Amino acid sequence: MEVERKFLVTDPPDLGADAGEEIEQGYLAIGSEGEVRLRRKGEKLVLTAKRGAGLSRDEAEVELDRNAFEALWPLTEGRRLRKRRSVIPHGGRSIELDIYEGELAGLVVAEVEFGSEEEARGFEPPEWVGAEVTGDERYLNETLASRGAPD
Amino acid sequence: MEVERKFLVTDPPDLGADAGEEIEQGYLAIGSEGEVRLRRKGEKLVLTAKRGAGLSRDEAEVELDRNAFEALWPLTEGRRLRKRRSVIPHGGRSIELDIYEGELAGLVVAEVEFGSEEEARGFEPPEWVGAEVTGDERYLNETLASRGAPD
Repeated sequence: MEVERKFLVTDPPDLGADAGEEIEQGYLAIGSEGEVRLRRKGEKLVLTAKRGAGLSRDEAEVELDRNAFEALWPLTEGRRLRKRRSVIPHGGRSIELDIYEGELAGLVVAEVEFGSEEEARGFEPPEWVGAEVTGDERYLNETLASRGAPD
Repeated sequence: MEVERKFLVTDPPDLGADAGEEIEQGYLAIGSEGEVRLRRKGEKLVLTAKRGAGLSRDEAEVELDRNAFEALWPLTEGRRLRKRRSVIPHGGRSIELDIYEGELAGLVVAEVEFGSEEEARGFEPPEWVGAEVTGDERYLNETLASRGAPD
Protein backbone atom coordinates (compact mmCIF):
# COMPACT_ATOMS: atom_id res chain seq x y z
CA MET A 1 0.00 0.00 0.00
CA GLU A 2 1.27 3.41 -0.97
CA VAL A 3 -0.14 6.52 0.73
CA GLU A 4 1.08 9.85 -0.53
CA ARG A 5 0.36 13.58 -0.65
CA LYS A 6 1.40 15.87 -3.45
CA PHE A 7 1.90 19.64 -3.68
CA LEU A 8 2.78 22.14 -6.37
CA VAL A 9 5.96 24.14 -5.74
CA THR A 10 6.29 27.62 -7.15
CA ASP A 11 9.35 28.69 -5.18
CA PRO A 12 11.56 25.63 -4.63
CA PRO A 13 14.55 25.78 -2.25
CA ASP A 14 17.84 26.41 -4.07
CA LEU A 15 19.48 23.01 -4.60
CA GLY A 16 22.03 23.87 -7.31
CA ALA A 17 21.64 22.95 -10.97
CA ASP A 18 23.03 19.41 -10.71
CA ALA A 19 21.17 18.42 -7.59
CA GLY A 20 19.12 15.28 -7.52
CA GLU A 21 18.91 12.28 -9.76
CA GLU A 22 17.70 12.12 -13.34
CA ILE A 23 14.59 9.97 -13.83
CA GLU A 24 13.15 8.95 -17.16
CA GLN A 25 9.90 7.04 -17.24
CA GLY A 26 7.28 5.84 -19.69
CA TYR A 27 3.97 4.01 -19.46
CA LEU A 28 3.27 0.64 -21.09
CA ALA A 29 -0.41 0.80 -20.24
CA ILE A 30 -2.67 3.25 -18.44
CA GLY A 31 -6.03 1.79 -17.47
CA SER A 32 -8.84 3.00 -15.26
CA GLU A 33 -7.86 0.40 -12.67
CA GLY A 34 -4.16 -0.05 -13.14
CA GLU A 35 -1.02 1.10 -14.87
CA VAL A 36 2.41 -0.25 -15.70
CA ARG A 37 5.44 2.03 -15.77
CA LEU A 38 9.05 1.64 -16.85
CA ARG A 39 11.59 3.84 -15.09
CA ARG A 40 15.29 4.48 -15.53
CA LYS A 41 16.91 6.10 -12.50
CA GLY A 42 20.66 6.23 -12.97
CA GLU A 43 21.64 2.63 -13.77
CA LYS A 44 18.54 1.15 -12.17
CA LEU A 45 15.84 -0.13 -14.53
CA VAL A 46 12.51 -0.86 -12.91
CA LEU A 47 9.04 -1.97 -13.96
CA THR A 48 6.26 -0.89 -11.59
CA ALA A 49 2.65 -1.99 -11.61
CA LYS A 50 0.07 0.04 -9.70
CA ARG A 51 -3.54 -0.74 -9.05
CA GLY A 52 -6.41 1.35 -7.73
CA ALA A 53 -6.63 5.12 -7.55
CA GLY A 54 -6.53 8.06 -5.12
CA LEU A 55 -4.67 8.36 -1.83
CA SER A 56 -3.88 4.63 -1.53
CA ARG A 57 -2.74 2.31 -4.29
CA ASP A 58 -1.42 -1.23 -4.44
CA GLU A 59 1.99 -1.33 -6.01
CA ALA A 60 4.66 -3.88 -6.97
CA GLU A 61 7.99 -3.29 -8.64
CA VAL A 62 10.65 -5.50 -10.17
CA GLU A 63 14.10 -4.77 -11.58
CA LEU A 64 14.62 -5.50 -15.26
CA ASP A 65 17.89 -6.26 -17.03
CA ARG A 66 18.92 -3.99 -19.88
CA ASN A 67 17.67 -6.33 -22.63
CA ALA A 68 14.20 -6.66 -21.12
CA PHE A 69 13.97 -2.91 -20.51
CA GLU A 70 15.02 -2.07 -24.05
CA ALA A 71 12.57 -4.59 -25.53
CA LEU A 72 9.65 -2.95 -23.70
CA TRP A 73 10.67 0.73 -23.80
CA PRO A 74 9.59 1.44 -27.45
CA LEU A 75 5.98 0.64 -26.45
CA THR A 76 5.97 3.66 -24.11
CA GLU A 77 6.36 6.13 -26.99
CA GLY A 78 4.21 9.23 -26.55
CA ARG A 79 3.77 8.47 -22.84
CA ARG A 80 7.13 9.48 -21.40
CA LEU A 81 8.54 12.15 -19.12
CA ARG A 82 11.82 13.24 -17.60
CA LYS A 83 12.46 14.89 -14.25
CA ARG A 84 15.18 15.50 -11.66
CA ARG A 85 14.37 14.23 -8.21
CA SER A 86 15.89 15.55 -5.00
CA VAL A 87 15.09 14.22 -1.56
CA ILE A 88 14.66 16.89 1.13
CA PRO A 89 14.30 16.00 4.81
CA HIS A 90 11.43 17.75 6.60
CA GLY A 91 9.93 17.06 10.01
CA GLY A 92 11.26 13.51 10.16
CA ARG A 93 10.03 12.72 6.65
CA SER A 94 11.51 12.74 3.17
CA ILE A 95 10.02 15.08 0.62
CA GLU A 96 10.65 14.11 -2.98
CA LEU A 97 11.05 17.27 -5.03
CA ASP A 98 10.52 16.59 -8.73
CA ILE A 99 11.71 19.22 -11.20
CA TYR A 100 10.26 18.29 -14.57
CA GLU A 101 12.24 18.70 -17.79
CA GLY A 102 11.61 18.69 -21.53
CA GLU A 103 8.03 19.53 -22.49
CA LEU A 104 7.04 19.71 -18.83
CA ALA A 105 9.79 22.22 -17.88
CA GLY A 106 8.49 24.75 -15.37
CA LEU A 107 6.51 22.22 -13.39
CA VAL A 108 7.83 21.42 -9.89
CA VAL A 109 6.04 18.99 -7.59
CA ALA A 110 6.70 17.85 -4.01
CA GLU A 111 5.56 14.41 -2.93
CA VAL A 112 5.61 12.70 0.46
CA GLU A 113 4.92 9.05 1.22
CA PHE A 114 3.38 7.84 4.47
CA GLY A 115 2.84 4.58 6.29
CA SER A 116 -0.87 5.19 6.80
CA GLU A 117 -3.64 7.57 5.85
CA GLU A 118 -3.65 8.90 9.40
CA GLU A 119 0.02 9.91 9.16
CA ALA A 120 -0.72 11.48 5.78
CA ARG A 121 -3.44 13.67 7.26
CA GLY A 122 -1.18 14.82 10.13
CA PHE A 123 1.65 16.01 7.88
CA GLU A 124 2.59 19.71 8.03
CA PRO A 125 4.24 20.78 4.78
CA PRO A 126 7.16 23.26 4.62
CA GLU A 127 6.56 26.91 3.72
CA TRP A 128 7.92 26.59 0.21
CA VAL A 129 5.15 24.32 -1.06
CA GLY A 130 1.99 25.72 -2.66
CA ALA A 131 -1.38 24.24 -3.54
CA GLU A 132 -2.05 20.61 -2.64
CA VAL A 133 -2.86 18.45 -5.66
CA THR A 134 -3.23 15.05 -3.99
CA GLY A 135 -5.78 13.08 -6.01
CA ASP A 136 -5.85 15.66 -8.81
CA GLU A 137 -5.65 13.48 -11.90
CA ARG A 138 -4.10 16.26 -13.96
CA TYR A 139 -0.93 15.94 -11.90
CA LEU A 140 -0.64 12.17 -12.00
CA ASN A 141 2.59 11.29 -13.77
CA GLU A 142 0.67 9.09 -16.22
CA THR A 143 -1.48 12.10 -17.16
CA LEU A 144 1.54 14.42 -17.44
CA ALA A 145 3.33 11.84 -19.61
CA SER A 146 0.44 11.35 -22.02
CA ARG A 147 -1.32 14.74 -22.02
CA GLY A 148 1.29 17.23 -20.83
CA ALA A 149 1.00 19.87 -18.10
CA PRO A 150 -2.37 21.47 -17.22
CA ASP A 151 -2.96 24.95 -18.74
CA MET B 1 3.65 -6.28 -35.47
CA GLU B 2 1.13 -9.02 -34.76
CA VAL B 3 -1.61 -9.80 -37.30
CA GLU B 4 -4.18 -12.39 -36.32
CA ARG B 5 -7.62 -13.77 -37.05
CA LYS B 6 -9.88 -15.40 -34.49
CA PHE B 7 -12.82 -17.80 -34.77
CA LEU B 8 -15.27 -19.42 -32.38
CA VAL B 9 -15.21 -23.22 -32.36
CA THR B 10 -18.37 -25.14 -31.53
CA ASP B 11 -17.20 -28.59 -32.68
CA PRO B 12 -13.44 -28.86 -32.04
CA PRO B 13 -11.42 -31.81 -33.42
CA ASP B 14 -10.91 -34.57 -30.83
CA LEU B 15 -7.49 -34.02 -29.27
CA GLY B 16 -7.79 -36.12 -26.12
CA ALA B 17 -8.30 -34.73 -22.63
CA ASP B 18 -4.63 -34.03 -21.86
CA ALA B 19 -3.77 -32.47 -25.18
CA GLY B 20 -2.14 -29.07 -25.34
CA GLU B 21 -0.44 -26.93 -22.78
CA GLU B 22 -1.94 -25.26 -19.74
CA ILE B 23 -1.80 -21.46 -19.84
CA GLU B 24 -2.63 -19.15 -16.95
CA GLN B 25 -2.62 -15.42 -17.53
CA GLY B 26 -3.61 -12.20 -15.81
CA TYR B 27 -3.61 -8.52 -16.69
CA LEU B 28 -1.64 -5.87 -14.80
CA ALA B 29 -3.27 -3.04 -16.73
CA ILE B 30 -5.84 -2.78 -19.50
CA GLY B 31 -5.93 0.62 -21.17
CA SER B 32 -7.63 1.93 -24.27
CA GLU B 33 -4.25 2.07 -26.00
CA GLY B 34 -2.24 -0.67 -24.38
CA GLU B 35 -2.22 -3.59 -22.00
CA VAL B 36 0.30 -5.57 -19.98
CA ARG B 37 -0.16 -9.28 -19.40
CA LEU B 38 1.56 -11.88 -17.24
CA ARG B 39 1.47 -15.46 -18.52
CA ARG B 40 2.58 -18.78 -17.10
CA LYS B 41 2.90 -21.50 -19.75
CA GLY B 42 4.44 -24.59 -18.22
CA GLU B 43 7.63 -23.36 -16.57
CA LYS B 44 7.88 -20.26 -18.73
CA LEU B 45 6.94 -16.94 -17.12
CA VAL B 46 6.44 -14.06 -19.50
CA LEU B 47 5.40 -10.42 -19.37
CA THR B 48 3.89 -9.10 -22.60
CA ALA B 49 3.05 -5.50 -23.46
CA LYS B 50 0.71 -4.78 -26.37
CA ARG B 51 -0.16 -1.49 -27.92
CA GLY B 52 -2.85 -0.46 -30.38
CA ALA B 53 -6.04 -2.33 -31.24
CA GLY B 54 -7.70 -4.37 -33.98
CA LEU B 55 -6.06 -6.61 -36.57
CA SER B 56 -2.52 -5.32 -35.99
CA ARG B 57 -0.89 -4.58 -32.67
CA ASP B 58 2.62 -3.74 -31.54
CA GLU B 59 3.86 -6.25 -29.03
CA ALA B 60 6.95 -6.92 -26.91
CA GLU B 61 7.56 -9.72 -24.47
CA VAL B 62 10.20 -10.50 -21.87
CA GLU B 63 10.83 -13.49 -19.64
CA LEU B 64 10.61 -12.94 -15.90
CA ASP B 65 12.24 -14.94 -13.15
CA ARG B 66 10.01 -16.52 -10.53
CA ASN B 67 10.54 -13.77 -7.93
CA ALA B 68 9.60 -11.00 -10.33
CA PHE B 69 6.57 -12.91 -11.60
CA GLU B 70 5.33 -13.63 -8.09
CA ALA B 71 5.82 -10.01 -7.00
CA LEU B 72 3.60 -8.79 -9.86
CA TRP B 73 1.01 -11.59 -10.08
CA PRO B 74 -1.17 -10.46 -7.09
CA LEU B 75 -1.94 -7.22 -8.95
CA THR B 76 -3.75 -9.21 -11.67
CA GLU B 77 -6.45 -10.38 -9.25
CA GLY B 78 -9.92 -10.36 -10.81
CA ARG B 79 -8.41 -10.19 -14.30
CA ARG B 80 -7.19 -13.75 -14.84
CA LEU B 81 -8.06 -16.72 -17.01
CA ARG B 82 -6.94 -20.29 -17.66
CA LYS B 83 -7.01 -22.23 -20.89
CA ARG B 84 -5.44 -25.25 -22.62
CA ARG B 85 -3.76 -24.47 -25.90
CA SER B 86 -3.17 -26.99 -28.71
CA VAL B 87 -1.41 -26.16 -31.94
CA ILE B 88 -3.03 -27.67 -35.05
CA PRO B 89 -1.36 -27.50 -38.49
CA HIS B 90 -3.63 -26.36 -41.29
CA GLY B 91 -2.76 -25.31 -44.83
CA GLY B 92 0.84 -24.52 -43.98
CA ARG B 93 -0.13 -22.49 -40.92
CA SER B 94 -0.49 -23.16 -37.21
CA ILE B 95 -3.89 -22.78 -35.64
CA GLU B 96 -3.87 -22.18 -31.90
CA LEU B 97 -6.90 -23.88 -30.39
CA ASP B 98 -7.69 -22.46 -26.95
CA ILE B 99 -10.04 -24.45 -24.73
CA TYR B 100 -10.96 -22.20 -21.82
CA GLU B 101 -11.32 -23.53 -18.28
CA GLY B 102 -12.72 -22.38 -14.95
CA GLU B 103 -15.40 -19.71 -15.23
CA LEU B 104 -14.93 -19.60 -19.00
CA ALA B 105 -15.42 -23.38 -19.50
CA GLY B 106 -17.39 -24.08 -22.68
CA LEU B 107 -15.64 -21.40 -24.69
CA VAL B 108 -13.32 -22.63 -27.46
CA VAL B 109 -11.47 -20.24 -29.75
CA ALA B 110 -9.15 -20.77 -32.73
CA GLU B 111 -6.53 -18.13 -33.51
CA VAL B 112 -4.08 -17.84 -36.39
CA GLU B 113 -1.15 -15.41 -36.70
CA PHE B 114 0.08 -14.03 -40.00
CA GLY B 115 3.05 -12.15 -41.33
CA SER B 116 0.94 -9.47 -42.99
CA GLU B 117 -2.64 -8.29 -43.30
CA GLU B 118 -2.69 -9.58 -46.90
CA GLU B 119 -1.86 -13.12 -45.77
CA ALA B 120 -4.50 -12.81 -43.07
CA ARG B 121 -7.17 -11.95 -45.63
CA GLY B 122 -6.19 -14.91 -47.85
CA PHE B 123 -6.48 -17.51 -45.09
CA GLU B 124 -9.05 -20.31 -45.58
CA PRO B 125 -10.11 -21.73 -42.21
CA PRO B 126 -10.82 -25.45 -41.64
CA GLU B 127 -14.40 -26.74 -41.58
CA TRP B 128 -14.54 -27.14 -37.82
CA VAL B 129 -14.35 -23.42 -37.06
CA GLY B 130 -17.48 -21.31 -36.71
CA ALA B 131 -18.13 -17.58 -36.62
CA GLU B 132 -15.18 -15.23 -37.07
CA VAL B 133 -14.70 -12.90 -34.10
CA THR B 134 -11.55 -11.03 -35.22
CA GLY B 135 -11.75 -7.54 -33.75
CA ASP B 136 -14.74 -8.41 -31.56
CA GLU B 137 -13.77 -6.89 -28.23
CA ARG B 138 -15.96 -9.32 -26.29
CA TYR B 139 -13.56 -12.10 -27.24
CA LEU B 140 -10.33 -10.31 -26.43
CA ASN B 141 -8.58 -12.22 -23.67
CA GLU B 142 -8.42 -9.07 -21.56
CA THR B 143 -12.21 -8.73 -21.82
CA LEU B 144 -12.77 -12.42 -21.05
CA ALA B 145 -10.43 -12.17 -18.05
CA SER B 146 -12.12 -9.11 -16.55
CA ARG B 147 -15.76 -9.47 -17.64
CA GLY B 148 -16.21 -13.19 -18.40
CA ALA B 149 -17.72 -14.79 -21.49
CA PRO B 150 -20.40 -13.00 -23.57
CA ASP B 151 -23.98 -14.14 -22.90
